[in-house]
Amino acid sequence: MTAEIIAVGSELLTPDRVDTNSLYLTSKLNDLGVEVTQKTVIGDDRARAAAAVRASIERAGIVVLTGGLGPTEDDVTRDAVAAALGRGLEYRDEIWQGIRERFLRRGRVIPEINRRQAYVIEGSEPLPNANGTAPGLWIEVEGRVVLLLPGPPGEMRPMFEEYAIPRLKRVLPQRVLVTRVYRIALMPESEVDQRIAPVYTKYANPVTTILAAAGDIQVHLRAQGDDEAQAYALLDEVGEQIEAILGDRIYSRTGEPLEVVVGNLLRDRGETVSVAESATGGLLAVRITSVPGASNYFAGGFLVYNDRMKAALLGIPESMLKEHTAVSEPVAEAMAVAAQERTGSSYALSITGVAGPGGGEEKTPVGTVFIGIAGPDGRGVHRARFPGNRDFVRNMAAQTALDLLRRKLG
Amino acid sequence: MTAEIIAVGSELLTPDRVDTNSLYLTSKLNDLGVEVTQKTVIGDDRARAAAAVRASIERAGIVVLTGGLGPTEDDVTRDAVAAALGRGLEYRDEIWQGIRERFLRRGRVIPEINRRQAYVIEGSEPLPNANGTAPGLWIEVEGRVVLLLPGPPGEMRPMFEEYAIPRLKRVLPQRVLVTRVYRIALMPESEVDQRIAPVYTKYANPVTTILAAAGDIQVHLRAQGDDEAQAYALLDEVGEQIEAILGDRIYSRTGEPLEVVVGNLLRDRGETVSVAESATGGLLAVRITSVPGASNYFAGGFLVYNDRMKAALLGIPESMLKEHTAVSEPVAEAMAVAAQERTGSSYALSITGVAGPGGGEEKTPVGTVFIGIAGPDGRGVHRARFPGNRDFVRNMAAQTALDLLRRKLG
Repeated sequence: MTAEIIAVGSELLTPDRVDTNSLYLTSKLNDLGVEVTQKTVIGDDRARAAAAVRASIERAGIVVLTGGLGPTEDDVTRDAVAAALGRGLEYRDEIWQGIRERFLRRGRVIPEINRRQAYVIEGSEPLPNANGTAPGLWIEVEGRVVLLLPGPPGEMRPMFEEYAIPRLKRVLPQRVLVTRVYRIALMPESEVDQRIAPVYTKYANPVTTILAAAGDIQVHLRAQGDDEAQAYALLDEVGEQIEAILGDRIYSRTGEPLEVVVGNLLRDRGETVSVAESATGGLLAVRITSVPGASNYFAGGFLVYNDRMKAALLGIPESMLKEHTAVSEPVAEAMAVAAQERTGSSYALSITGVAGPGGGEEKTPVGTVFIGIAGPDGRGVHRARFPGNRDFVRNMAAQTALDLLRRKLG
Repeated sequence: MTAEIIAVGSELLTPDRVDTNSLYLTSKLNDLGVEVTQKTVIGDDRARAAAAVRASIERAGIVVLTGGLGPTEDDVTRDAVAAALGRGLEYRDEIWQGIRERFLRRGRVIPEINRRQAYVIEGSEPLPNANGTAPGLWIEVEGRVVLLLPGPPGEMRPMFEEYAIPRLKRVLPQRVLVTRVYRIALMPESEVDQRIAPVYTKYANPVTTILAAAGDIQVHLRAQGDDEAQAYALLDEVGEQIEAILGDRIYSRTGEPLEVVVGNLLRDRGETVSVAESATGGLLAVRITSVPGASNYFAGGFLVYNDRMKAALLGIPESMLKEHTAVSEPVAEAMAVAAQERTGSSYALSITGVAGPGGGEEKTPVGTVFIGIAGPDGRGVHRARFPGNRDFVRNMAAQTALDLLRRKLG
């Protein structure tokens, strides 16, 4: 079974907005074993919308529309679908009463214009909207499904979960879908792909998708089966081969980000970490503290953005800064050791480098970063060069520091 | 003149990828006075792609396709457009030689498969690709334009700028387009809209768009005219009314983010700032230091995530922490004063609060934040409550701190 998604709304044809509802819907439809074969975005234009619906119904078994169910003249989806199906609209008083009560509960008078939302396509089943006034509509036409959903994600998603999924399950063949998400730190996407493609390209099921961010790759496996045992067996068959290839470069099998994995390791071992950041200006600490409960293992930190602060806040000797410059191995090590001592943490991470665009030197060009780590059993410094802009250098430096700590703790 | 955009690529029909090329293209087309009326995403499917092209050409004067120009069997765009136009493909040896040289320069042997990229649609003009192997194609058909561009943004954008825009200008009526971007801190989108809608809804030109992020609203004005003077006059007419309404809530008329505006104010005045962050864990410092050259005015900071560190690193009296708790006005003030003293900065900002989800108390529920500011002429504390999740509370707290400093400096 295939599906097409049509997003209706002129705001989705501006340079600033993108239809993200379709990502959610694609994920949920994939979970039901349905492949999305086309997506269309159209403005608030009755004729265009009707033409798009007509074309989609000819191609796909399921057509999902989002948006354009509001009360104004600009909201054309109901009319357009009715026209495409050659059906009329009919007034349902119970919908009007429901919307009225919603307004009353909020102490507001219902605008007469909202009456438009009580008109539904003949032969359709209205789907209640717990979070807004626009009901959805479920229509079955000769073995095909046309589904109208409101545009705001906060209304669309709960309605899809509660009312659309059970109805879709009724009309779709039963399949179980299970997923696994591997996360890999500090390996380029092309290298991950090159290594694991010989495995995953042999399998149409599970489906494998690779997602890349700076220094962080996700490998999504999605297996279908007649039952859970069969689906998990397929997932394991491919997953075990991928794990054998990537080894400890995989830091998560459940999709958790690196700061969560590191946080769990620290908590489990009763350890704490502090930071001393120069080039990253707090980015490493922001990631560590983005996890609720980080106060259990984050001891604090120092933002030492210039030589004077490295000396004043961390006691880095001015002679060392003069001799080696701030972007150097001895300074990175001294920063980590000082953070560890001054906070009393068991581990400390330090970052000093040249994020750019200015500040590069012959021996330390833009992108050069030294990452120091101090722990209960000693200290070390990792030197790296990240080719990219300021954001990239800062993100890669924080990611590398977190991964260093993960390996120490692992 | 209207345009439609077709993105080709099965990866754009997964739950993880969205077609963002169309946002760039929409912006550039809008700048040329062209409205985008429909967007379509299709997989690597020759027949579907050809059908989509055929339908778009019937509706729009300009059809832009992105993606599917690579060398493999999966890259169907050339074939699909040729089929839609009823044209053949012809081999161009100069394209093949160009691709060959590109490989040679990198010391690599060219795969024979790349020869597919030297086949172009009959009667089309190839557009050079400075950043990849796939040439673009420009085709004029009976007063309409079909434009094929590569999918990777790093190849598509330079090609569009350099080769497509001049050709589009030749076929389009001449219009001048000018833009202005206002940024407003800490006012809800609905309030901004309610206040300025009476102004901007009176004008179809300039077009006004409102974009919202947490605590940060952008108002985009986009005016068209026969010449610059006319376009700017229209921009000024609406802009001046908006400025009169929003006053000093506008922190930028050029679209710069708040950290850049604050950074410029600090640099112009020869002042410096330091931070002491608890709940935000470094987020304020990350924003300040995201601006190149921030080392000229960022003096450094303290990440004091628990009571012990507030005492150890900043010397906050334990009696004060005990009496008032860490989330209190006296502690926020003491944190700012200590950061100012210990770094020697002229200004200091402090943040202490409950980001959640845990940690709320009766007097300081989740979302409560105290922001301290110390300056040459005294100190103060701002109390706020941000209703939202952990990320929202942290982002709003950093934004509020930056805006407090802007007002002090302004």
